[in-house]
Amino acid sequence: MLHTNINKIWSELQQNEQLEQFRKMPSEQSQQFFWELSSRDQAHLLLSMPVDQRFFWMRALEPDDAADAIQEAPIESRQALLSCLDPSTHNEVTGLLAYREDVAGGLMSPRFATLRANMTVAQALAYLRRQAREHVETVYYVYIVNAQECLIGVSSLRELFAAPPEAPIKSVMKHDFVRAREEMDQEELSRLFAEHDLLAIPVVDSQGKMKGIVTIDDIVDVVQEEATEDIQKIGGSEALHAPYLEISLLDMIKKRAGWLVLLFLSEMLTTNAMAQYQSEIAKAVVLAVFIPLIISSGGNSGSQASTLVVRAMALGQVDLKDWWKVFRRELMVGLALGLIIGAIGLIRILAWQQIFPQAYGPHYILIAATVALSLICIVLWGGISGSMLPFILRKLGLDPASASAPFVATLVDVTGLVIYFSMAGFILHFGNNLFRIPG
Amino acid sequence: MLHTNINKIWSELQQNEQLEQFRKMPSEQSQQFFWELSSRDQAHLLLSMPVDQRFFWMRALEPDDAADAIQEAPIESRQALLSCLDPSTHNEVTGLLAYREDVAGGLMSPRFATLRANMTVAQALAYLRRQAREHVETVYYVYIVNAQECLIGVSSLRELFAAPPEAPIKSVMKHDFVRAREEMDQEELSRLFAEHDLLAIPVVDSQGKMKGIVTIDDIVDVVQEEATEDIQKIGGSEALHAPYLEISLLDMIKKRAGWLVLLFLSEMLTTNAMAQYQSEIAKAVVLAVFIPLIISSGGNSGSQASTLVVRAMALGQVDLKDWWKVFRRELMVGLALGLIIGAIGLIRILAWQQIFPQAYGPHYILIAATVALSLICIVLWGGISGSMLPFILRKLGLDPASASAPFVATLVDVTGLVIYFSMAGFILHFGNNLFRIPG
Repeated sequence: MLHTNINKIWSELQQNEQLEQFRKMPSEQSQQFFWELSSRDQAHLLLSMPVDQRFFWMRALEPDDAADAIQEAPIESRQALLSCLDPSTHNEVTGLLAYREDVAGGLMSPRFATLRANMTVAQALAYLRRQAREHVETVYYVYIVNAQECLIGVSSLRELFAAPPEAPIKSVMKHDFVRAREEMDQEELSRLFAEHDLLAIPVVDSQGKMKGIVTIDDIVDVVQEEATEDIQKIGGSEALHAPYLEISLLDMIKKRAGWLVLLFLSEMLTTNAMAQYQSEIAKAVVLAVFIPLIISSGGNSGSQASTLVVRAMALGQVDLKDWWKVFRRELMVGLALGLIIGAIGLIRILAWQQIFPQAYGPHYILIAATVALSLICIVLWGGISGSMLPFILRKLGLDPASASAPFVATLVDVTGLVIYFSMAGFILHFGNNLFRIPG
Repeated sequence: MLHTNINKIWSELQQNEQLEQFRKMPSEQSQQFFWELSSRDQAHLLLSMPVDQRFFWMRALEPDDAADAIQEAPIESRQALLSCLDPSTHNEVTGLLAYREDVAGGLMSPRFATLRANMTVAQALAYLRRQAREHVETVYYVYIVNAQECLIGVSSLRELFAAPPEAPIKSVMKHDFVRAREEMDQEELSRLFAEHDLLAIPVVDSQGKMKGIVTIDDIVDVVQEEATEDIQKIGGSEALHAPYLEISLLDMIKKRAGWLVLLFLSEMLTTNAMAQYQSEIAKAVVLAVFIPLIISSGGNSGSQASTLVVRAMALGQVDLKDWWKVFRRELMVGLALGLIIGAIGLIRILAWQQIFPQAYGPHYILIAATVALSLICIVLWGGISGSMLPFILRKLGLDPASASAPFVATLVDVTGLVIYFSMAGFILHFGNNLFRIPG
């Protein structure tokens, strides 16, 4: 099997600074190797080459790949890469660089095959045969434009291939087809590919003029990249934008310290809440024993709810206007989960007290009731707040994936303490009066 | 724009039971609609149709899509769907159903275009033109097999198109190409697509016989699905395997209760740990005030580390043998993050004491030292254990994504308490002797 793990080879190359190895590769192998590198690694490699070689390798890239590599290079080095291109590709790439990397315009290739509606199928095939030799990105779909370069129809090589040679293109082409605007976000674009099972989607401007095509192989990368960013955010870091073993230690610390500090500062509110309850703890130290158990249960329920909602939003299954449906679901689910967890907590305390009669003191029934009722409320509250936070972030124009598991846990910790100690104050006070247990 | 959100339409269809709407669609629109449904929804719709219609719609599916829809149907209804197919498709689909859904064999289509090496390009194109009319899944790549049906070369329609018509196929085809074995896992397969930028990969058996092709549009779905499963596990649930708003409440509770209960039972260890330290808390209630802050910091650092490592493993960037590299990284990063968080904690306590002189009592310097040193150790410990847990799970043959944020936080909570109270015992004892502060 040909398959060699490019990431591995490349990270070794980098680590041992064996660029020599790349130069010594037979030319066919080195081309394949170069094409399969990530844009980031292509940029690194290009910048580490002598200028004459850089010319050769830069020109081996398709315009959209060249634009990607340039965008991955440090700003001060971009001109050095751009200047390697021939004038016409230079123009194409400069055009692509004007788009943000994560929209249809930034992903598209400006090389595609266009036809006129009044050609015959035979003429079209003869024309495409010449195009296929001249490295058009894909000739599997063909795009039919009018005199103003506006896209009016789409066909595929397969359809032309199967059609009678003398038929005019306009009788073969589809008038009703999927297209994307230049500024369409890559996440929306990837949903469009998934829904319609297409190999390429044409990109048009506001006048309907054909600007380029996005091919599905770029979308696989987009989907992986978006999922990676979301996962890293859900775990409570910033997105790394680089492989785990390749990012520098300093960058790694920067990407993690920001959120960690923010979470720490928020969690300091628990210290304030706890300080309010010091006298309750002094009266019944046993209350402190359950603090980690209680607050973590809320955090766990919250992080389940938030990650499920964040992912459903990313997949387009849940929209802002669905908040009420989600709220109702989480109310029912949170209540059910709270009852399960509360019941286990109750049984645990009562059972433990039977085995170790000194465990929780004379008020153990009240303690058990406090813990169980608090668990029900906190698990429910965790689910509700975890599921609603992504909606609030999205409404504010922020990334819902920032509703990370640690962030939700931190929010729920503070309110969890308030719920627990309020419940304790109420039950112990009420219970003492009711049963006349000496306080 | 044609793009209509299929999920939305379908969930409305389901909820309002307006299957009538589907029947009333003009036939072209209803076909498009049907093809774009998920396999799950296709199965539902097929089973809700009268038998004569089911025949028609079942036969409108390609064999791999038909197999997917059948696999999504309840076991007792699968035969009803399978029996709608014509005998030859029935055989093909039965063959596909023998594979697990998540391996190359389960994803492949058995309809592909094969050629013999001694054909000319012109003969091949004429042959492919007939194939294109007969609904071969894709004719964009062509596969060259020998008399034993073993795959010996690959070419593309584009390459044939650009080649001289009289050239023999064997002079055009590539001998060195990417292929997958039937049992290759879909995650590995998706990495193969990403590395080689291919539209389709041929699947061969252990003798090298050509069995089918996997096309990239199926891989986009696989990549989304794998990421969704990982994200849901990282958030501390089981994978839902259904859209958030469509899964039944009971299933939702089942998918979440298991992990929530397991986490709760593990977190109960904190209750035991805390019970050990009740006398310390009784002596210095102020220690309890910092418990949530301290343990959550370890959990946050741990969930950052575990999600980064889990994702790097899924992308193939980190392998079992890299554990030592990861360990060294996390040691450095954890130490740096611990120092940052510890310093903030120290400053916070000392500053607070200046503003509210009664806040932490006469021992406040010792308290501050205990909290700061504990934070350093716990943040470091969180990072190390969070990053090593996915390796341990993988080594045991379990899914590394089970090292969820809540799971890591729970593990770190228990050890965090032990670290904090040991530190407190040591520093308060040692400090009291040193400064002769009355205990």
